[in-house]
Amino acid sequence: MTSTADAPRPPGRPRSVRADEAIIEATLDLLAEGSTIEAISVEAIAARAGVGKATIYRRWAGKDALLHDALRTLKGEPPQPSGRSVREDLVALVGAVGQNIDPRAAKIMPCLVPNVKRNAEHYALYQSIVEPRRAVMREVLRRGIRDGELRPDIDVEVTLALITGPLLIQRMLNWNPDLDETTLPARVVDQVLAGIQAR
Amino acid sequence: MTSTADAPRPPGRPRSVRADEAIIEATLDLLAEGSTIEAISVEAIAARAGVGKATIYRRWAGKDALLHDALRTLKGEPPQPSGRSVREDLVALVGAVGQNIDPRAAKIMPCLVPNVKRNAEHYALYQSIVEPRRAVMREVLRRGIRDGELRPDIDVEVTLALITGPLLIQRMLNWNPDLDETTLPARVVDQVLAGIQAR
Repeated sequence: MTSTADAPRPPGRPRSVRADEAIIEATLDLLAEGSTIEAISVEAIAARAGVGKATIYRRWAGKDALLHDALRTLKGEPPQPSGRSVREDLVALVGAVGQNIDPRAAKIMPCLVPNVKRNAEHYALYQSIVEPRRAVMREVLRRGIRDGELRPDIDVEVTLALITGPLLIQRMLNWNPDLDETTLPARVVDQVLAGIQAR
Repeated sequence: MTSTADAPRPPGRPRSVRADEAIIEATLDLLAEGSTIEAISVEAIAARAGVGKATIYRRWAGKDALLHDALRTLKGEPPQPSGRSVREDLVALVGAVGQNIDPRAAKIMPCLVPNVKRNAEHYALYQSIVEPRRAVMREVLRRGIRDGELRPDIDVEVTLALITGPLLIQRMLNWNPDLDETTLPARVVDQVLAGIQAR
Protein backbone atom coordinates (compact mmCIF):
# COMPACT_ATOMS: atom_id res chain seq x y z
CA MET A 1 0.00 0.00 0.00
CA THR A 2 1.65 3.23 -1.21
CA SER A 3 0.47 6.78 -0.61
CA THR A 4 0.47 9.25 -3.51
CA ALA A 5 3.48 11.09 -2.06
CA ASP A 6 5.55 7.90 -2.06
CA ALA A 7 4.62 6.88 -5.60
CA PRO A 8 7.67 6.77 -7.87
CA ARG A 9 7.67 9.61 -10.46
CA PRO A 10 7.24 8.40 -14.02
CA PRO A 11 10.58 8.18 -15.83
CA GLY A 12 11.82 11.13 -17.96
CA ARG A 13 10.98 14.77 -17.63
CA PRO A 14 7.65 15.91 -16.25
CA ARG A 15 4.88 16.14 -18.82
CA SER A 16 4.68 19.96 -18.67
CA VAL A 17 8.38 20.40 -19.53
CA ARG A 18 7.98 18.00 -22.45
CA ALA A 19 4.99 20.00 -23.71
CA ASP A 20 6.89 23.31 -23.40
CA GLU A 21 9.77 21.89 -25.40
CA ALA A 22 7.47 20.42 -28.04
CA ILE A 23 5.77 23.80 -28.46
CA ILE A 24 9.08 25.69 -28.80
CA GLU A 25 10.38 23.05 -31.22
CA ALA A 26 7.20 23.21 -33.32
CA THR A 27 7.49 27.01 -33.49
CA LEU A 28 11.11 26.90 -34.65
CA ASP A 29 10.39 24.13 -37.15
CA LEU A 30 7.54 26.09 -38.71
CA LEU A 31 9.67 29.26 -38.90
CA ALA A 32 12.59 27.33 -40.41
CA GLU A 33 10.24 25.86 -43.01
CA GLY A 34 9.29 29.35 -44.16
CA SER A 35 6.37 30.48 -42.01
CA THR A 36 6.69 34.21 -41.45
CA ILE A 37 6.42 35.86 -38.04
CA GLU A 38 3.13 37.44 -39.18
CA ALA A 39 1.63 34.33 -40.73
CA ILE A 40 2.52 31.76 -38.07
CA SER A 41 -0.49 30.97 -35.87
CA VAL A 42 -0.99 29.48 -32.44
CA GLU A 43 -3.31 26.96 -34.13
CA ALA A 44 -0.58 25.77 -36.47
CA ILE A 45 1.96 25.58 -33.64
CA ALA A 46 -0.47 23.58 -31.45
CA ALA A 47 -1.20 21.15 -34.29
CA ARG A 48 2.50 20.66 -35.04
CA ALA A 49 3.36 20.16 -31.34
CA GLY A 50 0.46 17.75 -30.81
CA VAL A 51 -1.08 19.84 -28.02
CA GLY A 52 -4.26 21.85 -27.67
CA LYS A 53 -4.29 25.64 -28.07
CA ALA A 54 -5.27 25.89 -24.39
CA THR A 55 -1.97 24.24 -23.42
CA ILE A 56 -0.11 27.04 -25.23
CA TYR A 57 -2.22 29.83 -23.74
CA ARG A 58 -1.73 28.38 -20.26
CA ARG A 59 2.03 28.93 -20.65
CA TRP A 60 2.35 32.02 -22.87
CA ALA A 61 0.30 35.22 -22.94
CA GLY A 62 0.13 34.99 -26.72
CA LYS A 63 2.01 34.49 -29.96
CA ASP A 64 4.55 37.28 -29.33
CA ALA A 65 5.61 35.88 -25.96
CA LEU A 66 5.98 32.41 -27.46
CA LEU A 67 7.98 33.73 -30.44
CA HIS A 68 10.23 35.61 -28.03
CA ASP A 69 11.02 32.43 -26.08
CA ALA A 70 11.46 30.39 -29.25
CA LEU A 71 13.87 32.88 -30.85
CA ARG A 72 15.77 33.19 -27.58
CA THR A 73 16.50 29.46 -27.61
CA LEU A 74 18.15 29.90 -31.04
CA LYS A 75 20.78 32.11 -29.46
CA GLY A 76 21.25 30.30 -26.15
CA GLU A 77 22.14 32.19 -22.99
CA PRO A 78 24.70 35.02 -23.18
CA PRO A 79 28.04 34.18 -21.51
CA GLN A 80 28.19 35.20 -17.85
CA PRO A 81 31.01 37.68 -17.15
CA SER A 82 33.71 36.13 -14.94
CA GLY A 83 34.55 39.54 -13.44
CA ARG A 84 38.31 38.95 -13.66
CA SER A 85 38.97 41.74 -16.17
CA VAL A 86 37.04 43.99 -18.53
CA ARG A 87 39.07 42.69 -21.44
CA GLU A 88 38.34 39.02 -20.70
CA ASP A 89 34.62 39.66 -20.19
CA LEU A 90 34.26 41.76 -23.32
CA VAL A 91 36.11 39.26 -25.50
CA ALA A 92 33.75 36.49 -24.31
CA LEU A 93 30.62 38.61 -24.79
CA VAL A 94 31.71 39.92 -28.19
CA GLY A 95 32.50 36.36 -29.24
CA ALA A 96 28.82 35.49 -28.79
CA VAL A 97 27.56 38.38 -30.95
CA GLY A 98 25.73 37.14 -34.03
CA GLN A 99 26.19 33.54 -32.91
CA ASN A 100 23.34 31.08 -32.78
CA ILE A 101 23.47 27.66 -31.17
CA ASP A 102 20.62 26.20 -33.22
CA PRO A 103 21.11 25.34 -36.91
CA ARG A 104 17.56 26.47 -37.71
CA ALA A 105 18.77 30.03 -37.06
CA ALA A 106 20.47 30.04 -40.48
CA LYS A 107 17.01 29.76 -42.05
CA ILE A 108 15.07 31.94 -39.61
CA MET A 109 17.34 34.95 -38.94
CA PRO A 110 17.88 36.07 -42.57
CA CYS A 111 14.10 36.31 -42.92
CA LEU A 112 13.69 38.27 -39.69
CA VAL A 113 16.56 40.71 -40.23
CA PRO A 114 15.35 42.56 -43.35
CA ASN A 115 11.98 43.16 -41.72
CA VAL A 116 13.30 44.48 -38.44
CA LYS A 117 13.19 48.11 -39.53
CA ARG A 118 9.96 47.83 -41.54
CA ASN A 119 7.72 46.04 -39.08
CA ALA A 120 7.06 47.11 -35.50
CA GLU A 121 6.25 43.56 -34.35
CA HIS A 122 9.53 42.21 -35.72
CA TYR A 123 11.40 45.13 -34.20
CA ALA A 124 9.95 44.64 -30.72
CA LEU A 125 10.81 40.94 -30.90
CA TYR A 126 14.34 41.72 -32.08
CA GLN A 127 14.91 44.28 -29.32
CA SER A 128 13.55 41.93 -26.65
CA ILE A 129 16.35 39.54 -27.57
CA VAL A 130 19.13 42.08 -28.17
CA GLU A 131 18.60 44.45 -25.24
CA PRO A 132 19.32 41.90 -22.45
CA ARG A 133 22.63 41.10 -24.17
CA ARG A 134 23.49 44.78 -24.46
CA ALA A 135 22.64 45.12 -20.76
CA VAL A 136 25.24 42.50 -19.78
CA MET A 137 27.95 44.30 -21.79
CA ARG A 138 26.86 47.68 -20.43
CA GLU A 139 27.28 46.40 -16.87
CA VAL A 140 30.81 45.18 -17.65
CA LEU A 141 31.71 48.65 -18.96
CA ARG A 142 30.20 50.36 -15.90
CA ARG A 143 32.07 47.99 -13.58
CA GLY A 144 35.27 48.84 -15.49
CA ILE A 145 34.67 52.55 -14.91
CA ARG A 146 33.96 51.99 -11.18
CA ASP A 147 37.08 49.83 -10.81
CA GLY A 148 39.32 52.30 -12.65
CA GLU A 149 40.05 49.95 -15.55
CA LEU A 150 38.23 52.27 -17.97
CA ARG A 151 38.29 56.04 -18.33
CA PRO A 152 35.33 57.67 -16.55
CA ASP A 153 34.44 59.82 -19.58
CA ILE A 154 33.81 57.00 -22.07
CA ASP A 155 30.68 56.99 -24.19
CA VAL A 156 29.12 53.72 -22.96
CA GLU A 157 26.38 53.39 -25.60
CA VAL A 158 28.80 54.08 -28.45
CA THR A 159 31.28 51.60 -26.98
CA LEU A 160 28.58 48.92 -27.03
CA ALA A 161 28.04 49.60 -30.74
CA LEU A 162 31.81 49.65 -31.38
CA ILE A 163 32.40 46.21 -29.92
CA THR A 164 29.22 44.67 -31.35
CA GLY A 165 29.14 46.18 -34.86
CA PRO A 166 32.23 44.49 -36.33
CA LEU A 167 31.18 40.98 -35.26
CA LEU A 168 27.61 41.50 -36.39
CA ILE A 169 28.51 42.74 -39.88
CA GLN A 170 31.17 40.09 -40.24
CA ARG A 171 28.91 37.18 -39.21
CA MET A 172 25.84 38.52 -41.02
CA LEU A 173 27.47 39.72 -44.24
CA ASN A 174 31.10 38.52 -44.21
CA TRP A 175 31.65 42.26 -44.62
CA ASN A 176 35.44 42.04 -45.06
CA PRO A 177 36.56 38.62 -46.34
CA ASP A 178 40.07 39.32 -45.03
CA LEU A 179 38.92 39.33 -41.39
CA ASP A 180 39.01 36.06 -39.46
CA GLU A 181 35.92 35.62 -37.26
CA THR A 182 37.70 33.57 -34.62
CA THR A 183 40.39 36.16 -33.82
CA LEU A 184 38.14 39.17 -34.41
CA PRO A 185 36.63 39.47 -30.89
CA ALA A 186 40.03 39.90 -29.21
CA ARG A 187 41.33 42.21 -31.96
CA VAL A 188 38.21 44.38 -31.69
CA VAL A 189 38.32 44.63 -27.90
CA ASP A 190 42.07 45.37 -27.84
CA GLN A 191 41.75 48.12 -30.43
CA VAL A 192 38.75 49.69 -28.66
CA LEU A 193 40.57 49.58 -25.31
CA ALA A 194 43.77 51.14 -26.66
CA GLY A 195 42.43 53.63 -29.19
CA ILE A 196 44.33 54.50 -32.33
CA GLN A 197 45.43 58.09 -31.77
CA ALA A 198 49.14 58.84 -31.42
CA ARG A 199 49.97 59.96 -27.88
CA MET B 1 25.52 75.63 -96.39
CA THR B 2 26.69 74.02 -93.14
CA SER B 3 29.33 71.34 -92.77
CA THR B 4 28.66 68.41 -90.44
CA ALA B 5 31.14 69.78 -87.91
CA ASP B 6 29.27 73.08 -87.73
CA ALA B 7 25.83 71.52 -87.36
CA PRO B 8 24.21 72.43 -84.05
CA ARG B 9 24.05 69.48 -81.62
CA PRO B 10 20.52 68.33 -80.88
CA PRO B 11 19.29 69.75 -77.56
CA GLY B 12 19.63 67.70 -74.35
CA ARG B 13 22.16 65.05 -73.54
CA PRO B 14 23.70 62.87 -76.25
CA ARG B 15 21.64 59.84 -77.19
CA SER B 16 24.15 57.35 -75.70
CA VAL B 17 24.05 58.96 -72.25
CA ARG B 18 20.25 58.96 -72.33
CA ALA B 19 20.27 55.25 -73.23
CA ASP B 20 22.74 54.44 -70.42
CA GLU B 21 20.54 56.24 -67.93
CA ALA B 22 17.38 54.56 -69.20
CA ILE B 23 19.03 51.14 -68.85
CA ILE B 24 20.22 51.83 -65.29
CA GLU B 25 16.81 53.24 -64.36
CA ALA B 26 15.02 50.22 -65.85
CA THR B 27 17.29 47.88 -63.87
CA LEU B 28 16.63 49.68 -60.59
CA ASP B 29 12.89 49.90 -61.27
CA LEU B 30 12.66 46.16 -61.93
CA LEU B 31 14.67 45.35 -58.77
CA ALA B 32 12.56 47.73 -56.68
CA GLU B 33 9.41 46.05 -58.03
CA GLY B 34 10.64 42.70 -56.71
CA SER B 35 12.76 41.10 -59.44
CA THR B 36 15.56 39.18 -57.79
CA ILE B 37 19.21 39.48 -58.78
CA GLU B 38 19.04 35.93 -60.14
CA ALA B 39 15.75 36.29 -62.01
CA ILE B 40 16.28 39.69 -63.61
CA SER B 41 17.23 39.32 -67.28
CA VAL B 42 18.93 41.53 -69.84
CA GLU B 43 15.85 40.94 -72.05
CA ALA B 44 13.52 42.34 -69.38
CA ILE B 45 15.78 45.32 -68.74
CA ALA B 46 16.04 46.07 -72.47
CA ALA B 47 12.27 45.90 -72.87
CA ARG B 48 11.68 48.19 -69.89
CA ALA B 49 14.32 50.68 -71.08
CA GLY B 50 12.96 50.68 -74.63
CA VAL B 51 16.30 49.63 -76.14
CA GLY B 52 17.57 46.53 -77.88
CA LYS B 53 19.64 43.91 -76.04
CA ALA B 54 22.55 44.79 -78.33
CA THR B 55 22.55 48.34 -76.92
CA ILE B 56 23.06 46.88 -73.43
CA TYR B 57 25.78 44.46 -74.49
CA ARG B 58 27.60 47.27 -76.32
CA ARG B 59 27.96 49.08 -72.96
CA TRP B 60 28.21 46.28 -70.36
CA ALA B 61 29.97 42.92 -70.53
CA GLY B 62 26.90 41.23 -69.05
CA LYS B 63 24.23 41.27 -66.41
CA ASP B 64 26.68 41.33 -63.47
CA ALA B 65 28.52 44.40 -64.75
CA LEU B 66 25.22 46.19 -65.33
CA LEU B 67 23.90 45.24 -61.87
CA HIS B 68 27.14 46.51 -60.34
CA ASP B 69 26.74 49.92 -61.98
CA ALA B 70 23.03 50.07 -61.15
CA LEU B 71 23.55 49.27 -57.47
CA ARG B 72 26.46 51.70 -57.31
CA THR B 73 24.17 54.53 -58.39
CA LEU B 74 21.92 53.76 -55.38
CA LYS B 75 24.77 54.68 -53.08
CA GLY B 76 26.25 57.61 -54.99
CA GLU B 77 29.97 58.34 -54.86
CA PRO B 78 31.82 58.02 -51.53
CA PRO B 79 32.89 61.38 -50.04
CA GLN B 80 36.37 62.46 -51.11
CA PRO B 81 38.71 62.93 -48.12
CA SER B 82 39.69 66.58 -47.69
CA GLY B 83 43.05 65.60 -46.21
CA ARG B 84 42.83 68.21 -43.44
CA SER B 85 42.69 65.69 -40.58
CA VAL B 86 42.08 62.00 -40.02
CA ARG B 87 39.17 62.83 -37.74
CA GLU B 88 37.41 65.05 -40.26
CA ASP B 89 37.89 62.56 -43.10
CA LEU B 90 36.74 59.57 -41.05
CA VAL B 91 33.63 61.38 -39.76
CA ALA B 92 32.64 62.20 -43.36
CA LEU B 93 33.32 58.66 -44.63
CA VAL B 94 31.58 56.99 -41.68
CA GLY B 95 28.61 59.31 -42.19
CA ALA B 96 28.10 57.78 -45.64
CA VAL B 97 28.12 54.16 -44.37
CA GLY B 98 24.79 52.45 -44.96
CA GLN B 99 23.46 55.56 -46.70
CA ASN B 100 21.76 55.43 -50.07
CA ILE B 101 20.87 58.44 -52.18
CA ASP B 102 18.11 56.69 -54.14
CA PRO B 103 14.77 55.88 -52.48
CA ARG B 104 14.54 52.59 -54.40
CA ALA B 105 17.37 51.33 -52.17
CA ALA B 106 14.86 50.86 -49.33
CA LYS B 107 13.19 48.18 -51.46
CA ILE B 108 16.27 46.67 -53.06
CA MET B 109 18.85 46.44 -50.26
CA PRO B 110 16.79 44.42 -47.74
CA CYS B 111 16.36 41.75 -50.43
CA LEU B 112 20.05 41.70 -51.31
CA VAL B 113 21.39 41.67 -47.76
CA PRO B 114 20.03 38.33 -46.47
CA ASN B 115 21.39 36.58 -49.57
CA VAL B 116 24.87 38.02 -49.42
CA LYS B 117 26.27 35.13 -47.40
CA ARG B 118 24.26 32.42 -49.15
CA ASN B 119 24.86 33.27 -52.77
CA ALA B 120 28.26 33.77 -54.41
CA GLU B 121 26.86 36.04 -57.13
CA HIS B 122 25.23 38.35 -54.57
CA TYR B 123 28.40 38.32 -52.48
CA ALA B 124 30.67 39.29 -55.39
CA LEU B 125 28.30 42.12 -56.29
CA TYR B 126 28.18 43.27 -52.67
CA GLN B 127 31.96 43.24 -52.30
CA SER B 128 32.45 45.08 -55.59
CA ILE B 129 30.49 47.96 -54.07
CA VAL B 130 31.85 47.79 -50.51
CA GLU B 131 35.56 47.24 -51.17
CA PRO B 132 36.19 50.56 -52.98
CA ARG B 133 34.65 52.37 -50.02
CA ARG B 134 36.80 50.42 -47.56
CA ALA B 135 39.82 51.32 -49.72
CA VAL B 136 39.16 55.07 -49.31
CA MET B 137 38.96 54.69 -45.50
CA ARG B 138 42.04 52.46 -45.46
CA GLU B 139 44.03 55.12 -47.27
CA VAL B 140 42.97 57.76 -44.72
CA LEU B 141 44.20 55.51 -41.89
CA ARG B 142 47.50 54.83 -43.67
CA ARG B 143 47.99 58.55 -44.29
CA GLY B 144 47.31 59.15 -40.58
CA ILE B 145 50.04 56.65 -39.67
CA ARG B 146 52.52 58.22 -42.13
CA ASP B 147 51.75 61.73 -40.83
CA GLY B 148 52.05 60.69 -37.18
CA GLU B 149 48.38 61.38 -36.36
CA LEU B 150 47.79 57.68 -35.67
CA ARG B 151 49.87 55.13 -33.78
CA PRO B 152 52.01 53.05 -36.15
CA ASP B 153 50.92 49.74 -34.54
CA ILE B 154 47.16 50.06 -35.16
CA ASP B 155 45.22 47.16 -36.67
CA VAL B 156 44.02 48.84 -39.87
CA GLU B 157 41.52 46.17 -40.99
CA VAL B 158 39.94 45.97 -37.53
CA THR B 159 39.76 49.75 -37.35
CA LEU B 160 37.81 49.77 -40.63
CA ALA B 161 35.31 47.35 -39.10
CA LEU B 162 35.17 49.38 -35.86
CA ILE B 163 34.21 52.61 -37.58
CA THR B 164 31.87 50.98 -40.11
CA GLY B 165 30.07 48.41 -37.94
CA PRO B 166 28.14 50.75 -35.63
CA LEU B 167 26.69 52.83 -38.47
CA LEU B 168 25.83 49.76 -40.52
CA ILE B 169 23.97 47.96 -37.72
CA GLN B 170 22.25 51.18 -36.69
CA ARG B 171 21.06 52.09 -40.20
CA MET B 172 20.23 48.50 -41.17
CA LEU B 173 18.60 47.33 -37.94
CA ASN B 174 18.19 50.38 -35.67
CA TRP B 175 20.25 48.14 -33.40
CA ASN B 176 20.11 50.44 -30.35
CA PRO B 177 17.08 52.75 -30.44
CA ASP B 178 18.84 55.09 -27.98
CA LEU B 179 21.56 55.99 -30.48
CA ASP B 180 21.03 59.00 -32.74
CA GLU B 181 22.21 58.33 -36.30
CA THR B 182 23.13 61.94 -37.01
CA THR B 183 25.60 62.33 -34.14
CA LEU B 184 26.83 58.72 -34.27
CA PRO B 185 29.62 59.15 -36.88
CA ALA B 186 31.49 61.75 -34.79
CA ARG B 187 30.91 59.84 -31.53
CA VAL B 188 32.21 56.62 -33.09
CA VAL B 189 35.30 58.22 -34.57
CA ASP B 190 36.14 60.11 -31.38
CA GLN B 191 35.81 56.98 -29.24
CA VAL B 192 37.93 54.90 -31.65
CA LEU B 193 40.60 57.59 -31.79
CA ALA B 194 40.79 57.99 -28.01
CA GLY B 195 40.28 54.42 -26.82
CA ILE B 196 38.54 53.65 -23.54
CA GLN B 197 41.32 52.28 -21.34
CA ALA B 198 42.39 54.29 -18.28
CA ARG B 199 45.89 55.67 -18.77
